[in-house]
Amino acid sequence: MTTDPNASDERTARTDEQRDEQSANANAGDAKTAGSAADGTETADDGPEIVDGRTIEHLLTDHERDIAATAEGTEATAAKRPSLDLPRLELGRRDFMKAGAAVGAMSGLAGCTSILADEESNDSGDAAASGEHSVAPGEHDEYYGFLSGGHTGEIRVVGLPSMRELMRIPVFQAESARGFGHDAKSSQMLEEEGGGYTWGDTHHPRVSQTDNDYDGRWLFVNDKANGRMARVDLEYFETDAITNVPNCQGVHGACMQLPDTQLVFGVGEFRVPMPNDGRDVQSPDEYGSVLSAINPETMDVEWQVEVDGNMDNGDGGKEGRWFFATGYNSEEGVTESEMARSDRDYVKAFDIPAIWDAVEAGNYEEISGVPVVDGTMDSSLNEGDRPIVRYVATPKSPHGISVTPDGNYAIASGKLDPSCTVIDIDAIAEVDDPQESIVGQPRIGMGPLHTAYDGRGHAYTTLFIDSQVAKWDYEAAVEAEAGSEEPVIEKHDVHYNPGHLIASESYTASPQGDYLVSLNKLSKDRFLPVGPIHPENDQLFHIGDDDAGMELIKDKPSYPEPHDASIVHKDKIEPAKTWDTDDYEIDYVAEGEESFERVDDSTVEIEMWARRNEYAFPEVTLQEGDEVTLRISNVETTSDVIHSIAIPEYDINLALAPQDTREVTFTADQPGVFWAYCAYFCSALHLEMRSRILVEPDE
Amino acid sequence: MTTDPNASDERTARTDEQRDEQSANANAGDAKTAGSAADGTETADDGPEIVDGRTIEHLLTDHERDIAATAEGTEATAAKRPSLDLPRLELGRRDFMKAGAAVGAMSGLAGCTSILADEESNDSGDAAASGEHSVAPGEHDEYYGFLSGGHTGEIRVVGLPSMRELMRIPVFQAESARGFGHDAKSSQMLEEEGGGYTWGDTHHPRVSQTDNDYDGRWLFVNDKANGRMARVDLEYFETDAITNVPNCQGVHGACMQLPDTQLVFGVGEFRVPMPNDGRDVQSPDEYGSVLSAINPETMDVEWQVEVDGNMDNGDGGKEGRWFFATGYNSEEGVTESEMARSDRDYVKAFDIPAIWDAVEAGNYEEISGVPVVDGTMDSSLNEGDRPIVRYVATPKSPHGISVTPDGNYAIASGKLDPSCTVIDIDAIAEVDDPQESIVGQPRIGMGPLHTAYDGRGHAYTTLFIDSQVAKWDYEAAVEAEAGSEEPVIEKHDVHYNPGHLIASESYTASPQGDYLVSLNKLSKDRFLPVGPIHPENDQLFHIGDDDAGMELIKDKPSYPEPHDASIVHKDKIEPAKTWDTDDYEIDYVAEGEESFERVDDSTVEIEMWARRNEYAFPEVTLQEGDEVTLRISNVETTSDVIHSIAIPEYDINLALAPQDTREVTFTADQPGVFWAYCAYFCSALHLEMRSRILVEPDE
Repeated sequence: MTTDPNASDERTARTDEQRDEQSANANAGDAKTAGSAADGTETADDGPEIVDGRTIEHLLTDHERDIAATAEGTEATAAKRPSLDLPRLELGRRDFMKAGAAVGAMSGLAGCTSILADEESNDSGDAAASGEHSVAPGEHDEYYGFLSGGHTGEIRVVGLPSMRELMRIPVFQAESARGFGHDAKSSQMLEEEGGGYTWGDTHHPRVSQTDNDYDGRWLFVNDKANGRMARVDLEYFETDAITNVPNCQGVHGACMQLPDTQLVFGVGEFRVPMPNDGRDVQSPDEYGSVLSAINPETMDVEWQVEVDGNMDNGDGGKEGRWFFATGYNSEEGVTESEMARSDRDYVKAFDIPAIWDAVEAGNYEEISGVPVVDGTMDSSLNEGDRPIVRYVATPKSPHGISVTPDGNYAIASGKLDPSCTVIDIDAIAEVDDPQESIVGQPRIGMGPLHTAYDGRGHAYTTLFIDSQVAKWDYEAAVEAEAGSEEPVIEKHDVHYNPGHLIASESYTASPQGDYLVSLNKLSKDRFLPVGPIHPENDQLFHIGDDDAGMELIKDKPSYPEPHDASIVHKDKIEPAKTWDTDDYEIDYVAEGEESFERVDDSTVEIEMWARRNEYAFPEVTLQEGDEVTLRISNVETTSDVIHSIAIPEYDINLALAPQDTREVTFTADQPGVFWAYCAYFCSALHLEMRSRILVEPDE
Repeated sequence: MTTDPNASDERTARTDEQRDEQSANANAGDAKTAGSAADGTETADDGPEIVDGRTIEHLLTDHERDIAATAEGTEATAAKRPSLDLPRLELGRRDFMKAGAAVGAMSGLAGCTSILADEESNDSGDAAASGEHSVAPGEHDEYYGFLSGGHTGEIRVVGLPSMRELMRIPVFQAESARGFGHDAKSSQMLEEEGGGYTWGDTHHPRVSQTDNDYDGRWLFVNDKANGRMARVDLEYFETDAITNVPNCQGVHGACMQLPDTQLVFGVGEFRVPMPNDGRDVQSPDEYGSVLSAINPETMDVEWQVEVDGNMDNGDGGKEGRWFFATGYNSEEGVTESEMARSDRDYVKAFDIPAIWDAVEAGNYEEISGVPVVDGTMDSSLNEGDRPIVRYVATPKSPHGISVTPDGNYAIASGKLDPSCTVIDIDAIAEVDDPQESIVGQPRIGMGPLHTAYDGRGHAYTTLFIDSQVAKWDYEAAVEAEAGSEEPVIEKHDVHYNPGHLIASESYTASPQGDYLVSLNKLSKDRFLPVGPIHPENDQLFHIGDDDAGMELIKDKPSYPEPHDASIVHKDKIEPAKTWDTDDYEIDYVAEGEESFERVDDSTVEIEMWARRNEYAFPEVTLQEGDEVTLRISNVETTSDVIHSIAIPEYDINLALAPQDTREVTFTADQPGVFWAYCAYFCSALHLEMRSRILVEPDE
């Protein structure tokens, strides 16, 4: 499946419907869509007038507006405003020396012309050489990809370059195959620490680093739905902590303080009353949003910083001083139209040592037990006369932000503006006007969302509306004038509408520079149809050869909805093969140590073991109403010989990897005979591996 | 990843640990393991004495017995018995004409010599030609594979030959990405019809047929854990019915009456009191197990048949008269040792018309509202003087059973015996002694579990202990003497310990004969390590060229734990691209039809819609304690433009495909501000797609 001898046919092979829908989702004014319109698509049949490459909003019928889809989302909003009149951003100077380009008025949405994609974009070579990137049966992949599962609540582990899904790690949801949410520890984590929600919305999985490189210890991921942060232990590939973050609705971005994962940051998105307990419901001016700093060891929230506006994504500088978050709704509106009034929003640069100083000096308000520091524009808190949070104005709604591997720049993607904004990190501490830290603002394409790096000075930015990935040179962008397309080296179509993208080890100081995955939100009819809920499409590119350009290797359908990923070289992860009983909080039950104890009239404690093909107790007799605590160990020592104990009609399945011990407490409230069985097929006599649980009825 | 220029290296590349564990799991006496023992594996270091290829049980230490793993499971059990002394089975005659082979004593476990695999087994050619079987980016697969998800409770849709997972279909578990268990209809299905369990154990997905070919209408699948049967609508790829089967614990096999899916059968595994309400807990003689016949349209249980012993897997004859189930524990013991006393078990052949006659004649006992017909050996019920259930004795614990595409034979795999048993289906109705319907009993290998067909007269049987798939000629097996290895054409290693296998359209009258998937229970270190819980390994073979033999194309890691699959040609499934509002039970809410109605002091009904990038109501004000019913439609008409409404901290996420309408009822019990948002990334202004839910506090 990785060889495509005639990849150039791939584009022409698109069906009419594909073209149709692609057109509906693309910017109605860009060159490609104009082309499809000429093919007689819906847009063309009775479509909007195209003037100078732009859709004239007032000519659209309601129906056309509906069809015009994503592009409309952008264009209609823009057109509703009387004037775009974007701010003139003064670009600062790179290291106060390189500077260069005096910067003129930045182009806004209206009047911009989209950058034409190189229609060839090396497609003729795509996948032709994919044999090099194949993984034969029995061979190992080179990388672990950790993808968020979006509103499944999970993390997915994918091998690269095969793009095979190796494992799921349940995080915010109970999951029976791994017994997550079935045993006492994980169900307590979900119920008590986690707030009792049955799902989550994972977006940004980040692997812990030491000295700006992956250390393979932990993975952190946010829950946007319920404002939580979770930690996954990468020795056991299992979620081991969940923190329900107070004063905060919608932890969106999730990132770390580098170089050594000193803090984990949760970027609060939605503005709500703090605490959100019914107060100030009708007073949006009183709402707030916070950045939360979480201790990676204890998972306690150390402090929060309240800011103006909604926040979105984040990333940390490589030296640990600055943390950056994008945002939207600087208007602090509560409806879409209120949020769309202003033409600018901000990148917020958090001065972490200054915030610690404020906390230590007691300059905070304690809310819900957490010190909340004032980081709004009006705050009087400062560090050397400069605010602890510096607001860098950008065109409206900057979305993704990521720090270059060399630590020099934070690059924010424009989303509603075709540019990316390059912020000089060293400059932030030095300049009087935060705007002076902006050292580049190249025009990349329509709907730039996220940016990844190859370690060779190239940035790769997803273009949601253009359905492309643009490769560009960020030092060239610093040298070029704002609004220049010159830094763009190459664009490659993706299928379709990409959100995040991630390159191998892009978040470290030393990206590997070979693979890139574009996480595309729509797949249309790229795969066999599977009903109205489509998979997404995670596309793998080889980016290791700058002369050959980006090479499409593979399409991977993906269950909704991975948002983001981290890609880690296999040598940096050292998973355990079996459990180390010393690592486990509850006592192992060895063979011979099994016990059945009736503690009192209605309390029973059972300690037992499992091995091929039996449980310590082939039979257990209980009385209706007994409170039963069952602890069970898998006494196998051979890796991959997994057992479970599934109790029919009692809604329990404990998964037991070798040397693992799990515990569950349940009430024997149904009289009858219940054949507990092993749900992991473990031997030829697997079916016979059972324990008969007799629950004698109350007389 | 499908090309392996030097596939023969794949075997030699196994690490020591792999060999070690392979040895632990393989039959300690077979040729391959003897070889690894010589390599200095654990088994060899202080391992059991090998005599004539067999492990001498009494020489094993407890530790060695533990290490000896799966093989021990089999061998130790065998060795505990004083004598295997298997019954002499008289083979009947093929169509009362072809017959042939007078059959001698059937070999049991002890004393058997394993069949040596062809160590070459075409491995040198494996995957070399896999380019032919690749699916380039943008190309479609040829087949849908529907895999059960085992104790995840789900169904997985995989494309063949790419082996990409296209979609998950939640069946017995709530799943937030699709909103399953979040909206009113699916949560009622799980809670009320489904019995309120939060998980299930899906084993056998079967696609409905018309005239012995797939009609693409429904997929049925069992829940072994909680005794249920579910139906998936293959227009929408969504579970649309769950039946909680009474009088039954552990619905294992799931199959259909052919040629036209007249009934769906649930094969009851565990013996329990009927009903299992606390009666007869301590009286195993009173336990029973039943075959359940379910109406595919209404999903009602039409009738059940009580039988002797535990049942296991099942399959239906092509003409609709006979249904077959394997079984174990004919002893009706309640411990593993009691279940292991007898050397024979039975294939049960159910005479479906005769059972209907008994039901219509009132010859049943009604239990839990279902007519239960007596199909035990002692039953007086009969059809033309022959029992309505005929018990065909086989070596102990026959496991899989499947009917050949020509409808001539039902082939049961031996599990604890190295043979498969070939039963002549026409003969069953005619012979006085059911044993006379056995027309072949070839020796296939160690641990035969399941058998699939290519439509060219070949059977493919998984060998769990040998970690192989054996290809054999079933007509040759009818001609050969019982116990002959002659019918075996080829064996191919799999990695490792296969359970089910499935060939393309193997369950129809016309298998496609090109692809076969072996669902291997253990992957060992076949993939990058991901902690103590390993993926399984679903291996794809090309079987279309009998001269070239079986060719290994691909390894696919698989989240635990697919048990079985059906493979359907893409032309036989016609999924909907958007919802047809006529197909949906609740009313669609068009733009302009939105409404907010306060029905009384504490009841609110909201009808609204969603489209890019807004909800009908940007704001909704509720009072603490309100009972809220929210109905919402996605008014998009473009396929793949999916929305959702996620309500933070209210634990709700309704997924909304285009033209879909969902409803949820919740109590507004938390005062505060809750930003409902769209969790499907739908446009550049996706983040702004929100509705502010204000829950005003009780004063």
